[in-house]
Amino acid sequence: MKVIASLTFAAAACALSVPAFAQFAKAEDAIKYRQSALFVMAQHFGRLGAMANGRIPFDAKVAADNAEVVADMAKLPWAAFGPGTEQGAPTKAKPDIWVEQAKFKEHSDKLIAESAKLAAAAKTGSLDTLKTAFGATAGTCKSCHDAYRAK
Amino acid sequence: MKVIASLTFAAAACALSVPAFAQFAKAEDAIKYRQSALFVMAQHFGRLGAMANGRIPFDAKVAADNAEVVADMAKLPWAAFGPGTEQGAPTKAKPDIWVEQAKFKEHSDKLIAESAKLAAAAKTGSLDTLKTAFGATAGTCKSCHDAYRAK
Repeated sequence: MKVIASLTFAAAACALSVPAFAQFAKAEDAIKYRQSALFVMAQHFGRLGAMANGRIPFDAKVAADNAEVVADMAKLPWAAFGPGTEQGAPTKAKPDIWVEQAKFKEHSDKLIAESAKLAAAAKTGSLDTLKTAFGATAGTCKSCHDAYRAK
Repeated sequence: MKVIASLTFAAAACALSVPAFAQFAKAEDAIKYRQSALFVMAQHFGRLGAMANGRIPFDAKVAADNAEVVADMAKLPWAAFGPGTEQGAPTKAKPDIWVEQAKFKEHSDKLIAESAKLAAAAKTGSLDTLKTAFGATAGTCKSCHDAYRAK
């Protein structure tokens, strides 16, 4: 069952061009990798949020650059949630991720799709368009965190 | 002087399309960001090294995918070495980075340039071409680490 889930996960990842190539020497590296990729993404996403919420002035070029990094980074973390990476370093990832891999993958696919839309929205130069796409992307972060990240 | 160095750094960063937009709430975040970006890059670079050195079989598609991530990630860390980020969290970054910003920038520019060549080389599908580009890129990592990373 674990093997089937794992194969399904890998096949689905290939189909989406998600880097199934990210293989890790040890679980600790995988955990550090996914946390690192998510942290980098969050920093750029935070800049967009600051613009969307009016905390910093809107700058179309800066928004487009940040959103592009978000869309790139959004593809990376998932290959590092492979079998055997449930533990090995401090992690907030809930064990359910490895039980409900298809459901978890729905969440990550949604982030990838919404962040691609966010990058496109940021390129329009319209703050209102950016706000809408930012909200949709933030929603995917939240729903996955609510389900699969420990407090 | 610090202001001038900082402006020079920012202007140079813009000219190169290096994300000068990555601003951080606190030094700790900048340090974590650059370490995260470098760790993600190193994981993908390590996969290329394993192929270049024959430790894993050469797979042209996997090589191209990994090299593309390396080239993308190579642009990110440098905006997080801004003034005031010399300390605030454990870091191996030597204080010389903030004294010799132009020289440090030469190193990071070289990595960005070589990793772009690496991505192009990986796309050719030739292992020999990949090996050469891998060696050149690894050389830029080493020379910067030798100069600016504490043991």
